[in-house]
Amino acid sequence: MADDLSAPDNPTTGAERTEADLSDPAFRAGVVSLLGMLAYGELVSFFTVVTDADRAPSTVKKVSLTEVAIREFEHHKMLTARLEELGANPHEAMARFRPALDEWHRRCTPTDWYEGLMKVYAGSTIAADFYAECGRFVDPQTRTLVEQVLADSDHYAYAKRELEAGIIRDPKLAARMALWGRRIVGEALSQAQRAAADNDELTGLLIDQGSGHGLDLAELMHLFTRITEAHTRRMEDLGLSA
Amino acid sequence: MADDLSAPDNPTTGAERTEADLSDPAFRAGVVSLLGMLAYGELVSFFTVVTDADRAPSTVKKVSLTEVAIREFEHHKMLTARLEELGANPHEAMARFRPALDEWHRRCTPTDWYEGLMKVYAGSTIAADFYAECGRFVDPQTRTLVEQVLADSDHYAYAKRELEAGIIRDPKLAARMALWGRRIVGEALSQAQRAAADNDELTGLLIDQGSGHGLDLAELMHLFTRITEAHTRRMEDLGLSA
Repeated sequence: MADDLSAPDNPTTGAERTEADLSDPAFRAGVVSLLGMLAYGELVSFFTVVTDADRAPSTVKKVSLTEVAIREFEHHKMLTARLEELGANPHEAMARFRPALDEWHRRCTPTDWYEGLMKVYAGSTIAADFYAECGRFVDPQTRTLVEQVLADSDHYAYAKRELEAGIIRDPKLAARMALWGRRIVGEALSQAQRAAADNDELTGLLIDQGSGHGLDLAELMHLFTRITEAHTRRMEDLGLSA
Repeated sequence: MADDLSAPDNPTTGAERTEADLSDPAFRAGVVSLLGMLAYGELVSFFTVVTDADRAPSTVKKVSLTEVAIREFEHHKMLTARLEELGANPHEAMARFRPALDEWHRRCTPTDWYEGLMKVYAGSTIAADFYAECGRFVDPQTRTLVEQVLADSDHYAYAKRELEAGIIRDPKLAARMALWGRRIVGEALSQAQRAAADNDELTGLLIDQGSGHGLDLAELMHLFTRITEAHTRRMEDLGLSA
């Protein structure tokens, strides 16, 4: 998903980071934060997709969604392996993001098959777009890993196909999904703010506070505009207003 | 688990089955039934273990239980691959066992962490013992696969350790677990009877109805005695009455 974001028009401000930068404790803490957030996100995604799979009507769908879920767990393992390489404890790195991510999932618990799909289609993608933006500010090896983890869009494509078919069969579904999509994104933004406020290391990675790396305020606004526009396009692709 | 059952004292009545027997449609249908039941059982186990993992308090436990669950899904894939080798549709083969297995899970839905563990410790093991007994009556290649799938007892060992520790910390847990264990096994027996009554091919595999293979009535009683005794020993290992 979000091919337009993994290679954004706006180039990264300042020089690109190198492996050598990892010897800077502040930068390293930022990379660990990003990996921790992403690792916990992939673990939670695994559980979310399995819940969808369990809810799926046929064993054919159960199995195909389970295979999607297992790839999310493999991503989780790749991310925790990188955390260990960097000398971090993966469980501590994840723990800091549990409150915001758990709260988002608690507030956006799907009550049926289509709400589960929409959560993937609108929610997981907006998170992935944000992670992709953050991935521009880390060392090359971590960046490659983040891109690899985010490149797997099978679940997104699956959700899109099922939602399209569902809306054709039952046009009333569109209004319900538009409403649910707005709720998901509203909650995502509010929990993202909470996560950012709680994690100076992560905001330090994203925002230039004198290091010569990261975004200034105008660029940060552009980042959020890009993410919002991509979300609006996805909703329009389903014939829904964002 | 159940090492005493995979190599029972009572030898199999009649000659062992060979690959050549698979050309007999009745025998082949029995093998397909067993594989279908087992494949659906492993798929459902995957979901059950993931639910436990999601309920686990720490990310360390979440991850270790998820790894157990993924092995159950790998077993499921191995069993469906064998079904396809035998020219059967895995989803059709599984479908016949959905009512009984789904009903068992519906009636034995754990409401907390320990009930989930006990379901594994008492429920999954009694099912595994039954599958192991059935595995004696199939062709060598299928038998090897069934043994391989059943040999993985990590989840069982995990549940046992957690239950032992829980009962030491809170002796009142023992009475609740004994009661819950009896319910699980009672429901398992009643749903197993239902599955058997609905699937002549499976009972044909187990019981000699003139083929020269399978058990007579006395041997069938011994089989159920062995399974019951193994269950009683497992409960006693935790200091519980069966």
